[in-house]
Amino acid sequence: MALRDERVTLAHGGGGTAMRDLIEEVFTAVFEPPGMEDAAQLSAAALAEPGARLAFTTDGFVVTPLEFPGGDIGKLAVCGTVNDLAVSGARPLWLSAAFVIEEGTEIALLRRIVATMAREAEAAGVRIVTGDTKVVGRGACDTVFVTTAGVGVVPPGREMGAARVRPGDVALVNGVLGDHGATILAARGDLALSTALESDCAALGHLMEAVLAAAPGARAARDLTRGGLASALNEIAAAAGCGIEISEEALPLRAEVSGMCEILGLDPLYLANEGRLVVFVPGDEAEAALSAMRARPEGQGACIIGAAVAAHPGQVRMRTAFGGARIVDMLVGEQLPRIC
Amino acid sequence: MALRDERVTLAHGGGGTAMRDLIEEVFTAVFEPPGMEDAAQLSAAALAEPGARLAFTTDGFVVTPLEFPGGDIGKLAVCGTVNDLAVSGARPLWLSAAFVIEEGTEIALLRRIVATMAREAEAAGVRIVTGDTKVVGRGACDTVFVTTAGVGVVPPGREMGAARVRPGDVALVNGVLGDHGATILAARGDLALSTALESDCAALGHLMEAVLAAAPGARAARDLTRGGLASALNEIAAAAGCGIEISEEALPLRAEVSGMCEILGLDPLYLANEGRLVVFVPGDEAEAALSAMRARPEGQGACIIGAAVAAHPGQVRMRTAFGGARIVDMLVGEQLPRIC
Repeated sequence: MALRDERVTLAHGGGGTAMRDLIEEVFTAVFEPPGMEDAAQLSAAALAEPGARLAFTTDGFVVTPLEFPGGDIGKLAVCGTVNDLAVSGARPLWLSAAFVIEEGTEIALLRRIVATMAREAEAAGVRIVTGDTKVVGRGACDTVFVTTAGVGVVPPGREMGAARVRPGDVALVNGVLGDHGATILAARGDLALSTALESDCAALGHLMEAVLAAAPGARAARDLTRGGLASALNEIAAAAGCGIEISEEALPLRAEVSGMCEILGLDPLYLANEGRLVVFVPGDEAEAALSAMRARPEGQGACIIGAAVAAHPGQVRMRTAFGGARIVDMLVGEQLPRIC
Repeated sequence: MALRDERVTLAHGGGGTAMRDLIEEVFTAVFEPPGMEDAAQLSAAALAEPGARLAFTTDGFVVTPLEFPGGDIGKLAVCGTVNDLAVSGARPLWLSAAFVIEEGTEIALLRRIVATMAREAEAAGVRIVTGDTKVVGRGACDTVFVTTAGVGVVPPGREMGAARVRPGDVALVNGVLGDHGATILAARGDLALSTALESDCAALGHLMEAVLAAAPGARAARDLTRGGLASALNEIAAAAGCGIEISEEALPLRAEVSGMCEILGLDPLYLANEGRLVVFVPGDEAEAALSAMRARPEGQGACIIGAAVAAHPGQVRMRTAFGGARIVDMLVGEQLPRIC
């Protein structure tokens, strides 16, 4: 135990022995095989397959509070990047993790975040193979920010993308919407809301593989993070050049989340999720995709919410419970800052 | 021009149209091919070569000030990650870039940083293929932090690593030491130092390829960032289990940097560099490596500074100008925070 400090000091960012102790004890002892060089060197038979492509993505995480019911910033940082890879059709393989840490941050908090990351990475079947830490003075950042990048492999012949969606394709989500956003909102405390909600944060790589095995013609998927379902559907409609119609009655919403949205004037269609995705599959593969989702714990609440249509290209419309229809626009501004 | 704002607002981080406008106009318009999905999909013949390995690394950047003589945070973010890949023996190919931006940051500043990144990436022969932006409220971060991750390819049969250094190997650096650290120190302004110094910040991928072509037996390289030459040599000595001897008289130092160090009680051996590396090559390849370095602009000031020795394993010693010897330890604490 070289590390006796309880809190991070500027010396832990200075490139010397204090930094080495922090990195070795708190980070690499949990993440990395011993003796690894700065740049991880990795070989994968999957990458050498003719026609395989490498997928590469990154996401920064600045959520507040850092720990909340159902997860913490570390869980978000692993799941968020795994999900970005998964919805692109890639099998997630490796992650990097870079931390910006405020002077004075409790070492015990860092250890909890790192432990979560290691656990989530293992569950998702990815390895955290390289990382970095920077320390900034008090007040120069808000405790801890984490940025992950991810590398995965898209198997030969697998082509997914929003532009491939066409009229008749069916849209499915894997569970109730908005739990993450509502949980963060309640966890901030300033609304004096007391709920039993937990974040939906989950890695969706295994779910996507199951969907793709059952529905090999799947056209496109999106994880429903900032901007929620509404933003994801609008992006897909714009890229595909077709319309999307969803049914209000089909949307899976927890009564508690709908209630909170009603009180606060929020729209659950825009609430952030961290373990939810929408996937578009050809109509004749929809039932198979639905069954494959429901067979997995992170897809138990899966359902069909609508379809792509030839009408109103680029626009998302919702048939309301009263039989009317309304346009579901993209979010314009900011519903809730620092949700992830 | 959808983006009329002069400063970043929280709405620019919210997942809606304001965020899309910021990302499209300021970031992807400069970085990415149009129509790219969230996760970049890349194919490289180099990755499919039998025996090739993928190299993967990440680094966060929190330098202050954000702009300084010879560079800015964007230049650091590209060169730093390119250099991590290069010193591992990899050919850098692709970068990701994730930004955490404080509410109120000038859009013009972001545009300058992004322009620098695009320019440096092109010069280094890498592509910035994926990214992310997060916006936090005033006071929750210090203007802009950038985290890059990098993917490269290690050609079949190329094996580099600090543990491979053995007695008799010769150590070379590619130019004068400490310009970056001294420049940042002066740029902070609170020392009322006026200098003509510029950061040494540079991408070293092409230099490393030239060294490896001239000295194919090269054992290990390290970029001399936080903790400077002293920390890099100590890491190598520890990993290799041999001693390292350097000569004070051989160390390339600018008079201005030595002078500033003397006034401030700093040791140039620990000053940060962002365009300098040390490489260990077998003795009979040292002259070839030196010539290869000097033939490139970023290696014009290259010189031999010492060698690995069988004596005092794990320890770095310096023969002083007066004929004595002193131990060069690893830096213990913090010489200068937020240097990169």
